[in-house]
Amino acid sequence: MTTHTEAPINPQQQALEDELVATVVASFDAAPNPRLKEVMQSLTRHLHAFIRDVRLTEAEWNTAIEFLTAVGHITDDKRQEFVLLSDVLGASMQTIAVNNQAHKGATDATVFGPFFVEDAPEIPLGGDIAGGASGQPCWVEGTVTDTDGKPVPGARIEVWECDEDGYYDVQYTDERVAGRAHLFTNDQGQYRFWGLTPVPYPIPHDGPVGKMLESVGRSPVRAAHLHFMVTADGLRPLVTHIFVDGDPQIDIGDSVFGVKESLIKEFAVQAPGSPTPDGRSLGDRTWARARFDIVLAPAGV
Amino acid sequence: MTTHTEAPINPQQQALEDELVATVVASFDAAPNPRLKEVMQSLTRHLHAFIRDVRLTEAEWNTAIEFLTAVGHITDDKRQEFVLLSDVLGASMQTIAVNNQAHKGATDATVFGPFFVEDAPEIPLGGDIAGGASGQPCWVEGTVTDTDGKPVPGARIEVWECDEDGYYDVQYTDERVAGRAHLFTNDQGQYRFWGLTPVPYPIPHDGPVGKMLESVGRSPVRAAHLHFMVTADGLRPLVTHIFVDGDPQIDIGDSVFGVKESLIKEFAVQAPGSPTPDGRSLGDRTWARARFDIVLAPAGV
Ligand SMILES: [Fe+2]
Ligand SMILES: [Fe+2]
Repeated sequence: MTTHTEAPINPQQQALEDELVATVVASFDAAPNPRLKEVMQSLTRHLHAFIRDVRLTEAEWNTAIEFLTAVGHITDDKRQEFVLLSDVLGASMQTIAVNNQAHKGATDATVFGPFFVEDAPEIPLGGDIAGGASGQPCWVEGTVTDTDGKPVPGARIEVWECDEDGYYDVQYTDERVAGRAHLFTNDQGQYRFWGLTPVPYPIPHDGPVGKMLESVGRSPVRAAHLHFMVTADGLRPLVTHIFVDGDPQIDIGDSVFGVKESLIKEFAVQAPGSPTPDGRSLGDRTWARARFDIVLAPAGV
Repeated sequence: MTTHTEAPINPQQQALEDELVATVVASFDAAPNPRLKEVMQSLTRHLHAFIRDVRLTEAEWNTAIEFLTAVGHITDDKRQEFVLLSDVLGASMQTIAVNNQAHKGATDATVFGPFFVEDAPEIPLGGDIAGGASGQPCWVEGTVTDTDGKPVPGARIEVWECDEDGYYDVQYTDERVAGRAHLFTNDQGQYRFWGLTPVPYPIPHDGPVGKMLESVGRSPVRAAHLHFMVTADGLRPLVTHIFVDGDPQIDIGDSVFGVKESLIKEFAVQAPGSPTPDGRSLGDRTWARARFDIVLAPAGV
């Protein structure tokens, strides 16, 4: 019940703390699932090491309980504050890193984020994902291949992004479906679509995670990005984004640590009136174009 | 997006994971509160070490998010599932251990638990805390001293316990106040009261924490105990329990790891009709008696 103490930790105290860790670890010895046992015992060791390393005070333990309670209470079907918490601690990105090891030239993965929605509309090659979302039109194209360079026909590509105000469709209270779609590669493994030039946006920061970021002086803003999820038979599914070369938020720091050098792409801005790839007329608006060639690893690596 | 992979972790992969940890740690560098910075950076290191050690799969990460969401949703003013989670992982007990280092002969601390209530009724010396709760009557007495053996008059003693069915008053839906009270030591530092002989009870196990315990083959049952919180000016507050010598649950294992050898006390059962310390008539009922002498450390150690 004291505040943070600087009392030296004597060997008897060390032994007592070690013994407690051993007792808790042993309590999982009879777990019938060996993997669950491994995970819980490792969690126990690291959790106790954290408490002991920082000599966590009882007041801080209380703050942690209150923080987690608040995270739990703001979480509902539309808002996943535990995912945000995992994201801003880099835990989501580390999980991605562990499960998507580099394989030959396979495209890097990055965080999934909380804004993916199942059953986004299908568009044809060259279709528009905007669905009424506002922003600068952006032509995106590329080819999906395997690590041997062989084109992958019929790969399913899900794409999603925020509008120019920094909001995903699901963050609005109406039932709009905008800034998201899926399409399939053609026989040459090619894809192309109209989207919006990505803009930086803050993760939802009106809750406990936002308060935590503020109290440690961190920005909630994510570097501008366009989400991709690519799946094809026999190949490792890929969840990734592409980022915008020159976006100053890349240097400031992406709030969820999703940026990888290999995923930063040129979004070349085109003057008003310059001819579009598909002849679409954009009047006096500027537009942009980006290329993202995707390489999928074999399944199971 | 793969299931748990046994692929070897090559040096480039290690470096990439290390770099991510360093980036997340550095994101807290500008935190204005140095203690918060220390805690968050240590948490980051241990959390990432856990993910990397077990090579956490994305499916397992999802399970963790769903588990925490369920813990958050069952938590309300009456039910604190995050405290239960901390308790069954030994994190509560480790926090107690870190903050209540042994000091001369000071009485050991143990977990606070979720069932303490402010403003429990005051009883006089020798009064009864049962307030209608059912169970075997139990006389408890002792002396509160400091570590020099000097009696502590006017120490405030909060005591609380479950009834013979294993439930605390706050677990009933009526507004009963039972099995809890506070009293003060007399000029000689002595206290005495009637309570109930403690019985083992399960922590609330109808929620996600109970499900977790079941899936790893652990009992939710706590060794029988009687809670104490003792406070006095200039002395370190003490939160503890006493346990019942001979309770088989002590060997099976207390579900929250609260048992310490020094806190196991004899609860001597008395034959029906044997004279009570205060002349109270208990008819043909058996009763028990226990002694618990309490030694408080100086404040701030
Ligand atoms: Fe996003
Ligand atoms: Fe208890």
